[in-house]
Amino acid sequence: MLKNIDFWFSIGSTYTYLTVMRLKTLEQEKGIRFNWQPFSVRKLMQEIGNIPFTGKPVKEKYMWRDIERRAQRYGIPITVPVEYPLKNFDLANRVAIVARQEGWCDKYTRTAYRLWFVNGLPPGDDPNLSESLESAGQSIDRIFELATSDSITDAYHDATSQARSLGIFGSPSFVVDGHELFWGDDRLEDAIDYVQSF
Amino acid sequence: MLKNIDFWFSIGSTYTYLTVMRLKTLEQEKGIRFNWQPFSVRKLMQEIGNIPFTGKPVKEKYMWRDIERRAQRYGIPITVPVEYPLKNFDLANRVAIVARQEGWCDKYTRTAYRLWFVNGLPPGDDPNLSESLESAGQSIDRIFELATSDSITDAYHDATSQARSLGIFGSPSFVVDGHELFWGDDRLEDAIDYVQSF
Repeated sequence: MLKNIDFWFSIGSTYTYLTVMRLKTLEQEKGIRFNWQPFSVRKLMQEIGNIPFTGKPVKEKYMWRDIERRAQRYGIPITVPVEYPLKNFDLANRVAIVARQEGWCDKYTRTAYRLWFVNGLPPGDDPNLSESLESAGQSIDRIFELATSDSITDAYHDATSQARSLGIFGSPSFVVDGHELFWGDDRLEDAIDYVQSF
Repeated sequence: MLKNIDFWFSIGSTYTYLTVMRLKTLEQEKGIRFNWQPFSVRKLMQEIGNIPFTGKPVKEKYMWRDIERRAQRYGIPITVPVEYPLKNFDLANRVAIVARQEGWCDKYTRTAYRLWFVNGLPPGDDPNLSESLESAGQSIDRIFELATSDSITDAYHDATSQARSLGIFGSPSFVVDGHELFWGDDRLEDAIDYVQSF
């Protein structure tokens, strides 16, 4: 039986780019199934007063260089810095909630991130939104209406509440066996080793 | 010729425990010389408003579990949580400045951290301070007088200013070739790969 890891993420987190681009290969190499779980990391970060980069230019400058080096280490294309923070963070993630329900979350998210970190086009805005939906074979009008519906508002809120109850405070986060939490792309291998240890 | 990496640290940083316990083995395995550089990370974090854990219980709880798992991964003994933040942070690091000038910084720092993370005795306080100095063959009275002298106050201040000018904002940090900055125990291997790449 395939081992499972819950992958909790928000489109808009910078380091999540590395994870989004690595998961497909890792799934194949390690025999893991990742369960994509979009939520609002922004809401949880605001709740606990966790502001990693905004107003901290020294840390932000380091972050871009660090992500760039890590991407090169993994052989992932990257051109940074990119627009940050995202203006339409919530729309980008509401669409991911729809995508999760309908089964095209990985494809949409990968395209949205690639267009952001390679072509400089921010997710949640056009042309990124249209192109990401098109790459997943989705109609823009239908998804936009769904993404702003009450039902998706509730699902987005519920996902964020579930993340909070798991002790999640950042993106990407990995949850193994429903409770063991790993935070950060640099803990993805730890999460995989953990799930494979039992 | 041995490759050099500047290891910038403050006693009082939690993740720095992992690095302090790993450096000796890595030096031997990789043929690297680490240049121990104590400074006040607390001062730089206050300047930029970087408060990682205080008042953030969800993040702090995760941090202890993460350090514990990482220590187990490396085969390093650990019993956490321990007293944090340190009450006598500055004294612990002033002594490290003296130790650096006199050539026993690694021995003192390793003992101070081991007593903290294995025996629960905080650095900068007795009995940790006396035992750490004794393990390095130093007289407590002489070192206490030196550590609180004007000359060491200046050296501590200068080291912190140098760290600031390198773009350092956290501990542990690694600087390769005088400018390329890596932050965090989890970037130590990246720093080693970087220095060995040229």
